[in-house]
Formats: sequence, C-alpha cells, structure tokens
Amino acid sequence: MNFDKIILMTLEEDMPGGDITSVASVGKDARAKGAFKAKADGVICGMEIAKRTFELVGGEVSLRCLCKDGDFVKKGDVLAEIEGNARSILAGERTALNLMQRASGIATATRQAVESVKGTNAKITDTRKTMPGLRMLDKYAVRVGGGTNHRYSLSDGVLIKDNHIAAAGGLTNAVLSAKAYVPHTLKVEVETETLEQVKEALSAGADIIMLDNMSYEMMAEAVKLIDGKAVTEASGNMGERDLKSVAETGVDLISIGALTHSVKALDISLKFEIIK
Amino acid sequence: MNFDKIILMTLEEDMPGGDITSVASVGKDARAKGAFKAKADGVICGMEIAKRTFELVGGEVSLRCLCKDGDFVKKGDVLAEIEGNARSILAGERTALNLMQRASGIATATRQAVESVKGTNAKITDTRKTMPGLRMLDKYAVRVGGGTNHRYSLSDGVLIKDNHIAAAGGLTNAVLSAKAYVPHTLKVEVETETLEQVKEALSAGADIIMLDNMSYEMMAEAVKLIDGKAVTEASGNMGERDLKSVAETGVDLISIGALTHSVKALDISLKFEIIK
Amino acid sequence: MNFDKIILMTLEEDMPGGDITSVASVGKDARAKGAFKAKADGVICGMEIAKRTFELVGGEVSLRCLCKDGDFVKKGDVLAEIEGNARSILAGERTALNLMQRASGIATATRQAVESVKGTNAKITDTRKTMPGLRMLDKYAVRVGGGTNHRYSLSDGVLIKDNHIAAAGGLTNAVLSAKAYVPHTLKVEVETETLEQVKEALSAGADIIMLDNMSYEMMAEAVKLIDGKAVTEASGNMGERDLKSVAETGVDLISIGALTHSVKALDISLKFEIIK
Amino acid sequence: MNFDKIILMTLEEDMPGGDITSVASVGKDARAKGAFKAKADGVICGMEIAKRTFELVGGEVSLRCLCKDGDFVKKGDVLAEIEGNARSILAGERTALNLMQRASGIATATRQAVESVKGTNAKITDTRKTMPGLRMLDKYAVRVGGGTNHRYSLSDGVLIKDNHIAAAGGLTNAVLSAKAYVPHTLKVEVETETLEQVKEALSAGADIIMLDNMSYEMMAEAVKLIDGKAVTEASGNMGERDLKSVAETGVDLISIGALTHSVKALDISLKFEIIK
Amino acid sequence: MNFDKIILMTLEEDMPGGDITSVASVGKDARAKGAFKAKADGVICGMEIAKRTFELVGGEVSLRCLCKDGDFVKKGDVLAEIEGNARSILAGERTALNLMQRASGIATATRQAVESVKGTNAKITDTRKTMPGLRMLDKYAVRVGGGTNHRYSLSDGVLIKDNHIAAAGGLTNAVLSAKAYVPHTLKVEVETETLEQVKEALSAGADIIMLDNMSYEMMAEAVKLIDGKAVTEASGNMGERDLKSVAETGVDLISIGALTHSVKALDISLKFEIIK
Amino acid sequence: MNFDKIILMTLEEDMPGGDITSVASVGKDARAKGAFKAKADGVICGMEIAKRTFELVGGEVSLRCLCKDGDFVKKGDVLAEIEGNARSILAGERTALNLMQRASGIATATRQAVESVKGTNAKITDTRKTMPGLRMLDKYAVRVGGGTNHRYSLSDGVLIKDNHIAAAGGLTNAVLSAKAYVPHTLKVEVETETLEQVKEALSAGADIIMLDNMSYEMMAEAVKLIDGKAVTEASGNMGERDLKSVAETGVDLISIGALTHSVKALDISLKFEIIK
Repeated sequence: MNFDKIILMTLEEDMPGGDITSVASVGKDARAKGAFKAKADGVICGMEIAKRTFELVGGEVSLRCLCKDGDFVKKGDVLAEIEGNARSILAGERTALNLMQRASGIATATRQAVESVKGTNAKITDTRKTMPGLRMLDKYAVRVGGGTNHRYSLSDGVLIKDNHIAAAGGLTNAVLSAKAYVPHTLKVEVETETLEQVKEALSAGADIIMLDNMSYEMMAEAVKLIDGKAVTEASGNMGERDLKSVAETGVDLISIGALTHSVKALDISLKFEIIK
Repeated sequence: MNFDKIILMTLEEDMPGGDITSVASVGKDARAKGAFKAKADGVICGMEIAKRTFELVGGEVSLRCLCKDGDFVKKGDVLAEIEGNARSILAGERTALNLMQRASGIATATRQAVESVKGTNAKITDTRKTMPGLRMLDKYAVRVGGGTNHRYSLSDGVLIKDNHIAAAGGLTNAVLSAKAYVPHTLKVEVETETLEQVKEALSAGADIIMLDNMSYEMMAEAVKLIDGKAVTEASGNMGERDLKSVAETGVDLISIGALTHSVKALDISLKFEIIK
Repeated sequence: MNFDKIILMTLEEDMPGGDITSVASVGKDARAKGAFKAKADGVICGMEIAKRTFELVGGEVSLRCLCKDGDFVKKGDVLAEIEGNARSILAGERTALNLMQRASGIATATRQAVESVKGTNAKITDTRKTMPGLRMLDKYAVRVGGGTNHRYSLSDGVLIKDNHIAAAGGLTNAVLSAKAYVPHTLKVEVETETLEQVKEALSAGADIIMLDNMSYEMMAEAVKLIDGKAVTEASGNMGERDLKSVAETGVDLISIGALTHSVKALDISLKFEIIK
Repeated sequence: MNFDKIILMTLEEDMPGGDITSVASVGKDARAKGAFKAKADGVICGMEIAKRTFELVGGEVSLRCLCKDGDFVKKGDVLAEIEGNARSILAGERTALNLMQRASGIATATRQAVESVKGTNAKITDTRKTMPGLRMLDKYAVRVGGGTNHRYSLSDGVLIKDNHIAAAGGLTNAVLSAKAYVPHTLKVEVETETLEQVKEALSAGADIIMLDNMSYEMMAEAVKLIDGKAVTEASGNMGERDLKSVAETGVDLISIGALTHSVKALDISLKFEIIK
Repeated sequence: MNFDKIILMTLEEDMPGGDITSVASVGKDARAKGAFKAKADGVICGMEIAKRTFELVGGEVSLRCLCKDGDFVKKGDVLAEIEGNARSILAGERTALNLMQRASGIATATRQAVESVKGTNAKITDTRKTMPGLRMLDKYAVRVGGGTNHRYSLSDGVLIKDNHIAAAGGLTNAVLSAKAYVPHTLKVEVETETLEQVKEALSAGADIIMLDNMSYEMMAEAVKLIDGKAVTEASGNMGERDLKSVAETGVDLISIGALTHSVKALDISLKFEIIK
Repeated sequence: MNFDKIILMTLEEDMPGGDITSVASVGKDARAKGAFKAKADGVICGMEIAKRTFELVGGEVSLRCLCKDGDFVKKGDVLAEIEGNARSILAGERTALNLMQRASGIATATRQAVESVKGTNAKITDTRKTMPGLRMLDKYAVRVGGGTNHRYSLSDGVLIKDNHIAAAGGLTNAVLSAKAYVPHTLKVEVETETLEQVKEALSAGADIIMLDNMSYEMMAEAVKLIDGKAVTEASGNMGERDLKSVAETGVDLISIGALTHSVKALDISLKFEIIK
C-alpha cells in the first residue's frame, strides 16, 4: 500500500503557507533529536507512514524504527528514534502523529476484538463506516490488528439489504439478479433478520448470509441451518455485544462498524530536543 | 463553509465503479421514501452536508430537514425525511451517514464539555489533532457544539513550544522573533509548564499563555499572575481532566484534543422503503 | 455510472484554450441543427455520454436521443438529433464521437461474441486489458454488449497465476493464503494449464478455475473433472479462437482481452448545419 | 515527453487498494526475473514508459532495455530483461503492457502506412480521433512509427470545415476571419470537397488545403491546380483507401484517423519467474 | 473560453476555511446592493468572469453588467450593478476584483499599444512572459485589448533562437529540421539579429522572421529584404521602444512582453451597502 | 516554503506536449552552459525556485547560485551559473524566469518602500490584492523585500469594514461579535475613516485599527488618540502616497496593494550556449 496521497494531503492541510512559528524561532539549519514513545499499551500501525511523512516533508531527517506495524507495545516503549533538521521535524510532527495514532487506535481495538474470540473460528472484520478519504488506511489498520476486510466499496462487493429485496420483489429475485449481473469473481451476500429469510437466502444460493441484529440463540440456530453451505457473518451494533458469545454461535465472521467509526486514538508522543 | 470537495471525495471513494448491488436489484426508476432518525441523544451537525450529498449524487432526491445544525435531539427523533430515486438514496446513504455521524459526534462531545464549564468564563476550544482531510469539518463541528476554534494550521497561528524556545535561545527571544516575523493580525502564544515560564512569557509580551499539564493549584496561581494581561489557555490531556475544576482556576480557554482525535460517532440511522 | 470526469478530461485535452477556428468564423450566437448517424451496423453505447458532453460544454444545446445504449442499429440509422448553439456543438463534437465510437465498438464486438456462443451456457467476459483511464467505460460497454465483467482491478479480485503459485510454494498454498487474507466477499480464482493443476485447484477449494490456453479437448475434460464444483473460465487469446467450440466444452465464462485492447471504433457521424 | 501522469493514473486505476493476490501469496522480499518478448512483428513504442512504470511502482526493479522506440522487432525477440522485487513486477505488469501494446500497435500501423507510400513525397499524419486522456501518447506513437502529427487540439490549429464556411458566409470569409484572429504562428487549413472549393481556398490564401473524400482523379487535379501554393492533405476514411494511389496523386500529407481510433494492440508478453 | 478553474482556484486560495469576519458580523440572510465602478480610464476585461465568480461562490447574487469586455470606460463609470446575499458578495469581492483588475490592466495597455501604431499595418502581439497559471486569461485580455496572440506554449509554436541554431549546426539546418518534425499546421519562426541572418532565414524558408533588438534602420532594411516572403515580427524590449517608429519600419507584428509581465492593474472598486 | 505545485503547474502550462522547437533542433544529449544575469538593479527573490524548476524539469542540469533571496544586485551581476542538458535548460528557462522576475519585482518594490520609511517605526505590509494562485509566492517576496505579511486569506484574519459594521448594527457590535466568534489566536482589526470611528474602535477593544484614506494630519491625530492601545495600520492607495509622510504620523504599519497588484518584473536574463 502506498499512502503518499494521504500524507501529502495531510501536510498540505496542516501547512498551506509553511510553519510560521518555526520559521520565526528556529534556525534554518538547526538540528533536533528525539523519539516516538507509546503513552499507552496498544498495537502499532503506521510506522512506515511516519517514516514516509518525514521523507515527504523534505529536509534531512532520519527515522530509525524500533518496532513494526502489528507489534504490541507497552506504555513507555520507544517506537522510533528521529534525528535531523529541526524545522522539518516540527513540520511533520502533527501529520505523522495524527495518522499513526488513529491507525494504531484502530489496530488496537481490532486486536482486542480478535483476542475476545480466541479459541473460536470467528474472524473479526470491518465495514464501510470508515473515515472519508481514509478508507484504505482504516482497512489496513484492521488487517494489522489481525482482522480481515469486508468489501472496500459499493463497487467491489455485493450486499443485498432489505431495500434491495423489496425493490427486486423478494430475496430470491434479488440474489438471482445479482448473480446474473455482477462479476463472477464476487460472492453474493444477503442480509437476513429472521430464520425464514435465512432459509430463503440459502435456497436462493447466497454465498454469504449476514445475520443481522439476532439474539445469540437465533444466530446459533441460523448457523446450524446453514451448516457450512454459506459463509455466515454476524452484524448489528457488534461493538456493544459480547463478542465471545457471538463467536460461540459458530459464525464465520463478526463485522464491527465501531472499529473505524468510533476510534480512540492510541496516545503516542514525539519528544525531541534541539541539538545544535 | 462549502464541503463539496469532501463529499465528492467520499462518494468517489465509496463508489469508484457504481453501486453494483443496487444496479443489479433495484430498478432504474424505483422510488423510495424514508427518514433519518437519531438512535442516541446528541447535537446534530451535518444536516446541510447530508442534503448536499444527495444533490451531488444526482438523480432526483429531496431531503426535508426537520432540525438544523446545533439542535439537541433525543433518541428516536426524526431528523429529516427523504424521498426520491431509490438508487440515488442507496448510493448516498453511507457517505451522508459517515460524515454526519462523525460531525455530530464531535458536536455532542463539545457540547458536553461546554456544559461542564457552565457558569465559568472558560471557553472550550479544539486543537490540530483532527482527522486528515477533514480539519475544516471537524472544526466546524466544534463550533456547532458551542466551542471555539484554535488555529487552523501551522500557517495561521503562532504557538511557541519548548523546542522553539530551545532553538531561539530562550522564551523571550522566541516571542520577540515571532512578533517581528509573523503577520500583525496574529497573536503570539507560548506554552509554559512552570510559573517561572509564565512570568517570562508575560514580560516578553506574549498575547496568549498556554498552561500545559499544570495542577489546578498552579494553574490558578498562573491565572492570578497573568491577571488579564494575556489570554490563558489550559492544555494537556484535558479530555481526561475534570473540566469544571480546570475552568474554576479562571482560565479563558480549555483546549481538548480528544474532541477530534477520539470521536464516538453519534448513532444516526437512515431507514427507507421502496414505494414504487 | 457517472462519466463526468472522463468527459471533462477529454474536453480539456481537446480544447485547452478554446476552439480557435470556431471563434474566428462562427458567430457567438449562431445556431446549428443536425443528427448523429450510424455509418455501420453495430450496438450503440454512450448515448447518455454524448448527451452529457454537450451539457458539460455549456452553451445551450439539446440532444434528443432516438436510441439507447444496447440498441442494435443499422448503417444509416439516425441515432439522435441535435440542435443549439453552433460553437458549443463544434466544441463537443470530437469528444462525444471519440467516446461513443470506442464504446460502441466494444459493445458491438461483445455482442458478436455473445451471439457466437448462443445456445450454450457460456458467458462472455472482459479482462484488465483496457485503455488507461477508461476502464470503467470499457467495462460498461462490455455489459451493454451483453457481456459480464471480470474484476475491475488488482484490488477487488483474486487471480492466482503461475508466479503466485511459484512464490507461495505450490498451488494449494497459494489458494489457502488467499482465502485467509482477502475479503470474504471475494472468490478465489486460479489459473491452470494442465489437468493436474485443475485437480489440485479443485481440491484446494478454488472458487473459480481458469483454463488457460488449453485445447478444446483438454478444456472439455477439465469441465467434466470440475463438474460444477467451481466456476470455469476459458482464457488465452480467445479473440482468435472459435468461440462456439470453446463454449461447447461447457465452460461457464470466456474472457477475451481483445474486446478492449484492440477495438475497432464503430463509425458514427455527426452532421449538422448552421441554421441562423 | 513526460508520461508520468498517464502512468500514475493507470497504476491508480489498476490498483486502488493494492494487489491483494500478490500480497496474499508472494513474500514481501521475493524476487523475480524475466523478460518482455514480442509475440508478433512490429514497431516498438513505449520502452521508456515501461521502464518508468516500474520506477513509479516503487520497490527495487531494474529493467534493461534491449531495443528502443522505433525499432522493428520480430516475433520472439526479447525486448527487455527485468529483475527485482516480485510484488513490484506483478503490480506494474499490466500497466506497462497496456500502455506499450497500444503505443506499439499505433507505431506499427503507422509504419505500415509509411511503407505503403514509400517512393512518393506523401507523409502520413494523424487526426484528433485519439483515445481520451492519451492524445499525447497516441501522437508520440505516430511519430515513432514515422508519421507526423496534425494539430494537437482545437486550440492550436485551424481547420475550417463546411460548417465554419456556412457560418462565416463563405469560404473566403472564413479564411480571412481566421487569418485575422488566430496566432500568426499557425497556418490556416480549409476542408474542400470540390475543385471549385479548391480554387476558392487557393485564392483566399489558405495555407493548407484538405482534399476530403475525393476520387484519385479529382485529387490529382486538385494537386495540379494548387501547384505548390498551399500544402495539400488527403483525408476521408484513408484507413480504407489504397494509400499508394492516394500518394501518387501528389498530395503532401495523408491523414488517417484509424491509426489511433481503431488500434490493434501489438502482442507483447512479460514472462518472469520467482528466483528467491 | 471557460475560466471556472481559475476562479475556483482563486476562491479556494482566498477562503480555505470560509470568511470568518463576515460569518461573525453579517447575518446569514443579510442582503446587499451596490456597483462596480471604474476608478480610472481603461478597457474593461473580465466582466463575465466577475459574473461567474458570484455564481461559483453560491448564494443568491445577481450581477447586471452595464458594459462588456472590450468597452473603453471612463473614471467614474458604473460597470455593473450587484445585488444579493451579503455574505456571498463579500466572499467573491476580492476574487472578482483581482481577476478583473489584472485583465483590464492588460487590455488597457494593449489598447494603448494598438493606438500607438494606428495607421500602420503592424499588429500588437504578446509573448510567453505571462503569469503562471493565468496564461489563457492573460492572452484573452490581450485579444480584448485589440492585440493578437503569439503561440500559447512551447508545444504549439516554433521559435528558433540562437541556441537552437547553434545546436542544429546553423540556421538553415534548424529551419529544415523544424519543418520536417513539427505538425504541418504550424509556421516556423526564426529569431534574427543581423541582416545576414535575415537573408539566411529567408532562403531557408522560414515562415516568420523575428527581428530582435534591431535599430529602426536595420529593421526597415530587413523588412525590405524580406519583401513579403515571410511574416516579420519586431521584438526585444518593445515595451520601452517607440512603437510608432517600430511600426513604421513596415513590420507585420510587434511582440511586447511587458503587456503581461509588468501589469498595472486597472483600478476598479466594488462598493455596496447592506440593505436588509 | 515549498513551491513545487506552482512550478509544476507553470511547466505544464508552458509545455503540455513538450518543447517541439528543441526536440526538432537540439540533440537529445546536447549540453549547454550559461548564466542568469540581472539586467537592472533590484532585490533577488526566487533563486531556490529557479533551482527547483530545473530539478523538476528533469534531465541533468546543475545550477550554482551566486546570490540568495534578499540580496540586492546591480545591473550586470551574475546571479547563477547553469550547466547541463540543453533541452532541459530550454524547457525550464521561461518558467524559472517568469517566476523569478515577478518575485524579484515584488521584493524590489517592497525594499524601496521599506527604504522610504527608514528611521521611522513603520513597517511595510501587503494586502490580499495578489495574483490568483500565487498568493504564497507573492507574500514570500514581500518578506524577502523586508516587508511583513497581512492576513493570508479571509479565513485566517479579521478585518471589519464598513459593510460588516452596517450589517452588525454598529462598529462596537461588529468587534464584539468577532471577538466571540473567531479563534482566540487572531487579532481583530477594524477599518476606520474618521476620528469618531477610531474612538469607537478603541473603546470596543479592537486590536488593530486601520486608518483608511486619511490625511496625514488626521492620521497623526488618530495615532495620538490610540496611544499604543491598538496597532495602527495606514491604508488606502498607499502606492501613490508619500510613504515617509505617512510613516511620520507614527503608524505601526503601512499596507500597500500595489506591491502585488501592479508588479514591474525585474529584468533578468538567462543566456547560455551549446557546449557539445
């Protein structure tokens, strides 16, 4: 993945006319040295993005990473050492931190969800409830945290919901229309809320059946009904459900919008001092 | 504020090649009708953005807003009614919700902070810890929530931190350099951590003095020392401090990074049904 | 599908500084009237794009379409009538024709391929051998011609080729890695060249098996082996094979790169005359 | 010519979210080695573009070109050797081939046309019937094939057609208006269909006279009439005429839309194997 | 000509985050009414651009133009009346004025130059010394002022200078190479500084001969030598020469860089008052 | 400051399809050597931009700067030596000169203004009357000339004018609204035309008071009244006033629109010769 566009856009947004405080107070050739440090426990995501940020800021800065994306770090751990032109470090600081803290926050939350379902077959997956402009980064962070990705956009995945069913004149019709229309490389997923719908989805040939807002009992029953003939995905405010209980129903996947729509940034600091 | 660029970018990201599920299952001329509903209490932000989203999606959709940005709504309140081409509604749904839920989440958190300091003179303000690409929207949401904005970028505000001080050879030097260099339309702010620094900032002529990570006592003492000769801003993990206690030290502003870096989206649903 | 970006880019490319011939010789308010006419038999694609082109050029032009995308037209048929500002018609002429002629050329070639396999179960599909910048349009034209689309990009479909197999240490490994890594919404396709590989792909659980450059006999045998347990796709210079024979082997899909990499534009003319 | 924008756009289109098959099955540091090979005889165009593609993909890949743009190659000839990071080669493969195959297809067709008129004074030239977004590349390929370029856009050349004549109130008026209006650096060209028009164009002072859709006899007569006082250009479905006969009428240029609107890609393969 | 891109870019530059003064002090629905007035004599250019600016700002504003591009106005003349939403008028004010004042400044200077050579055959033309990003607007303003345009860019015109001559191994070689290489729609121009060079250019077949930095006498002699066999263009700090004397040498064109590189903006005011 | 976007846009504008004259007449590997020379006295601005231009053009060119931004140079001084690929030098020549000549023109005019007020406390500042797309460069040039910058845009500074006052229901109201609304990092400036307004601005707590179009006497009186309680800025056709007299009234700043709206480019030449 190449995140240059996101980084450049972030730098531009944060510095349309340069960093006036630094130009006023820091000499053009001043150098600084410091470190990124974790201020909370979590999963690191965005280490290469931070590195790339300082390359794109320009000026001579070197970042020595002491950990890599996916590593679990403890509060106080040094993540990377930085040294170079002081103005450049100041210019890239906020961009690097904003991107890294969000990505690490997502990776950390994903890891927690993954841990919750350890011992079951359920995988944790994301949704399209991502931050505008940052979807690819958000989804990368989910993978780094040990989750998998749901479709990237409306254009590369099929998810038939109640409205599609109503419009198509029934679930079976909707599934058949999708199968006839979309690329053969895509599976067809249907959202269901009742066991009746589950049965219809199954006999219509859905590849994936979403079990939406069901009780644990109904979910378990649905999984039993489906019996491996389709992939099963639990959905519906999963951020507030007990993931272990969900997983124990036997579902293949649990999709959680909160992983990306309500992110608690991982606290990371960048402290440095002028050395010349 | 014109948010067209953000909306268009979000639509493009969510639909690089159209919405294949809808094209497969929903007739080109099918119509739908429905409503946006709050699923939690909070401050609405982004009503006009939602409206504009459906204009930019194209197709004929009308959105009748029943509330406006800044309104406090209760769980279950209908926020807007929507009616029009079904494919267009499906295409704009996620974009409208993603933007509105984040903005409303920020406005709601800001309102809570503002409520916490009611009865004091303190204002709530934001930081540069915003989401890449969405800074203007994030800051708009803070204003809608009753807060004020700190500088928009490194280019239009001056904030002298420890590194600038070190590089400039002392706080006084840094303040004087800034005053000589930056547009006369900008105030000069200095970050201080001790009362000594507060005194130096004051005598150097700083317009705003940031009281960073101070105890309530030290903060109160600093405010007394400053005595209206500079604006005072409390800072440093304010998201985890008792805002009332902070405000009661007499500071003018409290800046809170968590307002925008760790947003809990306000839950809003868009339910609709096919009517033709 | 919204093709505004492509249309605007084409207009910009054709007219970075206006249309100097028209400005010199055609009055600002001159009006013209005319028609798009087919100069060869074929399937029309891009009628709406032509209409949109004149909207985006600006000036007052109305285009009345007499056919729609997917219609088969005969040499001499009038496709649309146009009337409006003469300068605007001249400015949009080449852009509208270039886009429409290519799209109709693709749709026509696709229709021919579809006709060739009539009576069998085989569908015609495209590849990633599309024109840079025009992939969505090229793939739209294939659908209009009666074909289906293969994956849109490397990001939204899985196709395991010989190199992936070599790198992964065997076909089975490659399939399993893909299944573990990619979104669960995607099927996993493997390219095979021998019956041995077909068997391995099948037992590894591939969802789609590509039969690459096989003789008709081998292809038929492969289809028999697979026996509906995976989707089958014939591939390899299909533009130069006898499609009927391919289809009769029983494959589900035939993918043809030549549909989009070697397009013969459908000849369409736009004749008009100045009426005022 | 710098084609970076086209290359980057093509890569972005083919890989909005990375190459998921390769990430799943090919190790991050795997290396590969291989060659570009011609699978048909033709004129190579785009060798430097292929090289630049892999530079822009990033990762460490080296491409050693064994031929250069304009070289005529035989089926089976090795065009270039490639070695480097396997994921990078896989990521750039389709972009490099799509661009190179089209450009080489155009150069090959141009060369054939140029060969057809060998021994005459006629030059082969292109038109504005190019692929949207690729005009500069298409026109470069024509030059590589030995042709020359007609105007690049409506903004940098003058071509007076029947409608301009009608609007201007006659051919002479149109020529005079153009001469008065357009930059003095541009010649004025007029389209003619009869000898009467040729005469009028000549006496009006046209710099270039296009002989549109004329019989060989009429063309020859027109050339004689013009007698070197203007440049002559044969036009009108030249892709389907006998170019030698056209050239022998004595025209200076023959413009052929089919060179770029109906391109048969030159078949080029990129085969490589994982070496580590 | 469509100047939307320039207008949008200018608005974005002037208002990345809205107009904070107006939002703070002017009611959302306040209306204003006023007029554009000339504060100096000159040629108006950009009236439609001003109108379009307010359309692109959005909000309801109507601009009634009382003059059109190319009109000569006197100090005090009312150019247009404006009425509408007060915030929108304030937001578009500076953009409209900056563009219009520059364009009118260029048109005015061009008109003065054109007046200076009245009674001769010389035309006034521009150069590539235009403002980055505004070349098309600058050249439009020259036309509005009564001048003509030189080439738009390095890509659509040929001007052989001393370095090209040196590189090509002589003037004749350079002319012949250009004639062989560039589109046949373009004339070939050569820069000359001596009568010897003029003669060589003439016999090499140059279409346009630039007489660079010559005395009036030498220029007149060159024109006589050329005797209508090529177009003649006087060049070299023409902004500081006596244009009448230059024109009387008989040259066809006089190109003046100062028209666009050293522009004195025409003073135009926009006064309005709040009416509700 | 990073000016890459401006440079790239300028190169693109000047060379959408390459430099056809050079390609025709200058060998691909020809080398050239030369120098930038001042053809008038002035302050240099844009030396690094010129250097960066040739880096972005590509090809191997080295520029050795003999002066730096802010240096005062004399007619005839060599500013930089250049050597490298001849085509690259020709391609970048106009872009480098256009940018550098404008920036140096602004810096020179600013320096003259600064010199005029030497011995007083007045600083010279700019306005928003800059060239569309070049504001950051224009403002950089003002700083290089020894001036300071006024606000960059409507979004990062507050300037209350007569219309804001009318809309807000009085000057005091307008100031208070602004203070309540805008970021606390910004000062609030009010435009005044009478001493009455000055008094009201002062008592309303304006941070900066603009003295607009006042006589020297009134200005002096206003300064006395204000007595250091607000910053004072003289404004109103300052380009045509006697700056020394203005400064002697005791104002803090003099803002001059003409610095950027009516720029006389500093004449700089780039002469080079082919060396191989």
